[in-house]
Amino acid sequence: MSELKNDRFIRALLRQPVDRTPIWMMRQAGRYLPEYRATRQRAGSFLDLCKNEELACEVTLQPLRRYPMDAAILFSDILTVPDALGLGLYFEEGEGPRFRKTVRTEKDLAALNSISAEDDLSYVMSAVRTIRRELGGQVPLIGFSGSPWTLASYMVEGGSSKDFRHIKTMAYDQPELMHHLLSLLADAVADYLGAQVRAGAQVLQIFDTWGGVLSAAGYEEFSLAYMQRIISQIPGEADGRPVPVIVFTKNGGQWLPAIADSGATAVGIDWTTDIGVARACIGSSVALQGNMDPSMLFASPARIRQEVATILASFGHGSGHVFNLGHGITPGVDPDNVTAFVDAVQELSVKYHQD
Amino acid sequence: MSELKNDRFIRALLRQPVDRTPIWMMRQAGRYLPEYRATRQRAGSFLDLCKNEELACEVTLQPLRRYPMDAAILFSDILTVPDALGLGLYFEEGEGPRFRKTVRTEKDLAALNSISAEDDLSYVMSAVRTIRRELGGQVPLIGFSGSPWTLASYMVEGGSSKDFRHIKTMAYDQPELMHHLLSLLADAVADYLGAQVRAGAQVLQIFDTWGGVLSAAGYEEFSLAYMQRIISQIPGEADGRPVPVIVFTKNGGQWLPAIADSGATAVGIDWTTDIGVARACIGSSVALQGNMDPSMLFASPARIRQEVATILASFGHGSGHVFNLGHGITPGVDPDNVTAFVDAVQELSVKYHQD
Repeated sequence: MSELKNDRFIRALLRQPVDRTPIWMMRQAGRYLPEYRATRQRAGSFLDLCKNEELACEVTLQPLRRYPMDAAILFSDILTVPDALGLGLYFEEGEGPRFRKTVRTEKDLAALNSISAEDDLSYVMSAVRTIRRELGGQVPLIGFSGSPWTLASYMVEGGSSKDFRHIKTMAYDQPELMHHLLSLLADAVADYLGAQVRAGAQVLQIFDTWGGVLSAAGYEEFSLAYMQRIISQIPGEADGRPVPVIVFTKNGGQWLPAIADSGATAVGIDWTTDIGVARACIGSSVALQGNMDPSMLFASPARIRQEVATILASFGHGSGHVFNLGHGITPGVDPDNVTAFVDAVQELSVKYHQD
Repeated sequence: MSELKNDRFIRALLRQPVDRTPIWMMRQAGRYLPEYRATRQRAGSFLDLCKNEELACEVTLQPLRRYPMDAAILFSDILTVPDALGLGLYFEEGEGPRFRKTVRTEKDLAALNSISAEDDLSYVMSAVRTIRRELGGQVPLIGFSGSPWTLASYMVEGGSSKDFRHIKTMAYDQPELMHHLLSLLADAVADYLGAQVRAGAQVLQIFDTWGGVLSAAGYEEFSLAYMQRIISQIPGEADGRPVPVIVFTKNGGQWLPAIADSGATAVGIDWTTDIGVARACIGSSVALQGNMDPSMLFASPARIRQEVATILASFGHGSGHVFNLGHGITPGVDPDNVTAFVDAVQELSVKYHQD
């Protein structure tokens, strides 16, 4: 494997000195880019794109050609594991992900496939290897998965949900069944992330998209505990370097101390949290990733730059911050506004890393 | 007006001793009740129901006939004020509220009607008077409005939104226009709530449904400041009794200290906040209202009772707690589960109010 030419992202995650604050964007390979939309059309369905290693590599690299991002992220879906378990993932245009089968009983659970990520998600590992090779050490590659709670919510509901009625009823009324499903998923995700690291992923992120719909106690019991279980199972290093793990719970701002205690290297925060408050709260034990409102990218370049300045000032001096949006970039954003965003972070962050 | 026979709700809001924790439910007059659905069908559209004082009174009283609630809440919509301003509120089945016109420019703003709540929302005041009369002092009547930010979000977007793209672009790029609109709305809402009090409302609640989509700084600037402005303008008492004001910001758990400083008598919290943590944080200056997960009502009566016990224990001994859900009750809940919920609060809370 090529030597890593830019390790600013990994150094910031480890809270080691950097020359400026690194940046990448959640969903940076996405629909706001015309070249992404063209490749997506060529691939067929969204899943066809995920499963084609050359095209998945192509869209992973597209944002890096436009912007000097400090990390690449594997192009894939958070729901590949439940798909491999046999639920039949598909996408209806404008509807979000759906599953052909749901898991609502012990019998449904027993009917799930036994999987090994190396074999049953080999298309993901092929994509990781291809991307890592094509990156040529330019920046680190992030591997990822959905959190067990997030995967389970789609598996139990059968798709997106407004009130999470079925999974919450399971969690509240059949906690043993819920824990059984979450345990199975935690082990499958740990195996999946470990395989991604062996294939070449250098940093891992767990997307806990729906942990924030739980109560404080429910979050610890049904979401955080299983992310901790994953972190304890995955390899702490690869090629002699540590493999940092980022945990991102959308709407998790009230629970930062508990998340910081999970064993994660870094905690992703959404834009509702003041990053200065978060740093004062947990910045001595973990790095922080975030947190500009994705909708700020609809504003003018000057306003975007001002917001970047505010966030940098709120975090303050020193390492331990990876700049990002507080959630995935929204389709419809003008790619030139992303240029203004990335440039602002690069230019304005330097002074926070000088002695 | 009749003497108030049950003032437990008002006493708890004022943190005065009570015999047990009072309870009501957001959206307690709603679709989960078969008698509501029947009246709704008889009325025609949802707005027809709001505008018919006899039927609005009927649905307001329906939950009180089934459950020993400690408060009634005016049946109306949070968007009556923008409707009176001339935007043309309507509802498409399963789509949420929509407006025929949007407000995106100074010109749109200048075209809004000048309104007086007494005249232009007289149907609401008629409903308040009718309900208050029919209640006969059984329990206090809550009047309400949406927060300025929440009203503005529907007015600028034209309806519900996933990313609040238009209003956020206005807030970020045209803050003067945004503040102009919010000022106008704050004054209109203050006039509206004042008129509700004169018509007979004994407690007021401001529903800040969408304040939680803002950043911490944005919340204070665009939502909280205007709720403060309203609170400073509305009458502090009526008929020689104080008129408590409850502020409820969904997803506002990170900002409780700021909300508690707004001048509100009580702060509504959603289920993602631990009520014991919230009490330790702001319970010495305001009462708390909440906060069971509405989806808990899909669980078994025994599990509901257990959750009520957990929340009561978390709040602990003494007054200053109004039991409620952490958000409106979900259509599809079995009305018998609400019985289990209300009974549990009544029975299990007594011991927290004994010396």
